Amino acid sequence: MDMDQHRYLITGAAGFVAPHFLRLLQTQEPGAQVLGVDLNPPTWTGAGVETQTLNLLDRPSVEATLQAFHPTRVLHLASVSSVAVSWKAPVESFQNNTNIFLHLLEGLRKLEIPARVLSVGSSEEYGRVDEAHLPLTENHPLNPGSPYGVARVAQEQLSQVFAEGYGQDIVMTRSFNHLGPGQKAQFVVSSFAKQMAEAKKAGLKQFTLTAGNTKVVRDFLDVRDVVHAYHLLFQGGTSGQVYNVCSGVGRSLDEVLTLLARICGLELTVDVDPALVRPNELMTIVGSAQKIHQAVGWVPELQFEQSLRDLVEYWQ
Amino acid sequence: MDMDQHRYLITGAAGFVAPHFLRLLQTQEPGAQVLGVDLNPPTWTGAGVETQTLNLLDRPSVEATLQAFHPTRVLHLASVSSVAVSWKAPVESFQNNTNIFLHLLEGLRKLEIPARVLSVGSSEEYGRVDEAHLPLTENHPLNPGSPYGVARVAQEQLSQVFAEGYGQDIVMTRSFNHLGPGQKAQFVVSSFAKQMAEAKKAGLKQFTLTAGNTKVVRDFLDVRDVVHAYHLLFQGGTSGQVYNVCSGVGRSLDEVLTLLARICGLELTVDVDPALVRPNELMTIVGSAQKIHQAVGWVPELQFEQSLRDLVEYWQ
Repeated sequence: MDMDQHRYLITGAAGFVAPHFLRLLQTQEPGAQVLGVDLNPPTWTGAGVETQTLNLLDRPSVEATLQAFHPTRVLHLASVSSVAVSWKAPVESFQNNTNIFLHLLEGLRKLEIPARVLSVGSSEEYGRVDEAHLPLTENHPLNPGSPYGVARVAQEQLSQVFAEGYGQDIVMTRSFNHLGPGQKAQFVVSSFAKQMAEAKKAGLKQFTLTAGNTKVVRDFLDVRDVVHAYHLLFQGGTSGQVYNVCSGVGRSLDEVLTLLARICGLELTVDVDPALVRPNELMTIVGSAQKIHQAVGWVPELQFEQSLRDLVEYWQ
Repeated sequence: MDMDQHRYLITGAAGFVAPHFLRLLQTQEPGAQVLGVDLNPPTWTGAGVETQTLNLLDRPSVEATLQAFHPTRVLHLASVSSVAVSWKAPVESFQNNTNIFLHLLEGLRKLEIPARVLSVGSSEEYGRVDEAHLPLTENHPLNPGSPYGVARVAQEQLSQVFAEGYGQDIVMTRSFNHLGPGQKAQFVVSSFAKQMAEAKKAGLKQFTLTAGNTKVVRDFLDVRDVVHAYHLLFQGGTSGQVYNVCSGVGRSLDEVLTLLARICGLELTVDVDPALVRPNELMTIVGSAQKIHQAVGWVPELQFEQSLRDLVEYWQ
């Protein structure tokens, strides 16, 4: 077997990120075999590409899938990745982050499948940080502020311990805010883009948008840059190491709104609804992308405005 | 209801620590109602004391028990607390530490039972530490080195998040090595005491004991001081805070062996078995007990030699 002919298992195949990773693979590794799994998997077409229904909480099924497919690389995207959902259903959130991941790792270990695993984590692991410490480097202490954040920290620490204790090949990320075509409207920027795309389509020139605190600054990355980073980490990341996947640039929601209004040709009024302002929300979160840059040479390639244009187009 | 008449739910009732806590309650809070739960609960006798079979992984049963008993205080001792077991069965270890605890917290939240919870954690949460940072204070970063350590960190971080986010009343500990009557021989000091107690009983004057690295230094605490600390934390600990429960004194296994030999009147030879020397074992772990002392006035009361005498007597 050509060493480059990898067998990719992708969990969370029905999510936002997976199809972008698949598209990248089809360009860069046309010979790769891909199995996408999810509770309700999408239909993927193309040579060497298949999908399968799989509940990662069902350990025997996880092992059967691993045994049958024998991946060389595992991209673990499956996650109940909403902070809000984790406050409403903390047990389910925890299980569908930490426990599902542990089932995967333990299945690979028991079956002695030496796959490289990419454990996708979140900037939510940092939690409450002092703005004096921005941009956040990977050495910054983890102080998660939600059940979701705790679940992601546990996932990362389990990765660390499995890599060191059992010698498994596991690379970890802390991925910051994503945006891009295909993103659901439950995420703030996608929601803004959807509303303005619809206003534009309706021929409006003026639009009033209701929002929470638009002064908050976040580190946004186009999903196509994200999957490029993941692909490079599969190739050149170091097992047992964690990498921020972020732009290194902070942008306020005000800035995002101004750009979206310009793209849609709208005169925008923002109506701040105090009910949408989250208590104790961190004003600014920005990561440092130095480590991943030095390790695998990754830099974000898409211009932020282009990402917003593509997101607006997606909603149109 | 007299505010002092607490209703204690004790998980892990069949374990080493629970009967010591029960004994303390019967002296200090004779009016307390106590329900001890475990997979195979012991028989507890006394007024207001009962036990019940409960699998904490079974969420509906956890809720039914909480609903029926309506505790005002929950002492969560249930745990698969062995590091070695966590390496052999990481999924089961994780579930029987983190998931069971989460079921308890979420049950209390859903049923709106305003009980104070004592989340018992472990010095294993600190993991790999630099000996220059000893004694360990609660501010020291957590860097768990085993699946068990990760599970305990997740338990503590969930406690923190539930205390802050939902306003639940949760006090956390990081408890260091215990010893005392009733401890199983899978723990090193109890194993030494058992072997020497048996040698003494057999009328031997000389004894050769096989051990791993006896130079390691640990922070040992008598289980009766441990439960006293827990009782004081129920009364005076601050919700959302974590407290080391430790002696603050480091003792090498060599020192322990010398004391045990003197107690048993044995001339001891130690045979070091390289197979028992753990790789990457930390040489010295000592905690700082300052925070708990300042918060609730707790100090260990039992002399170390007395603890060893009682342990030898237990094995005789």
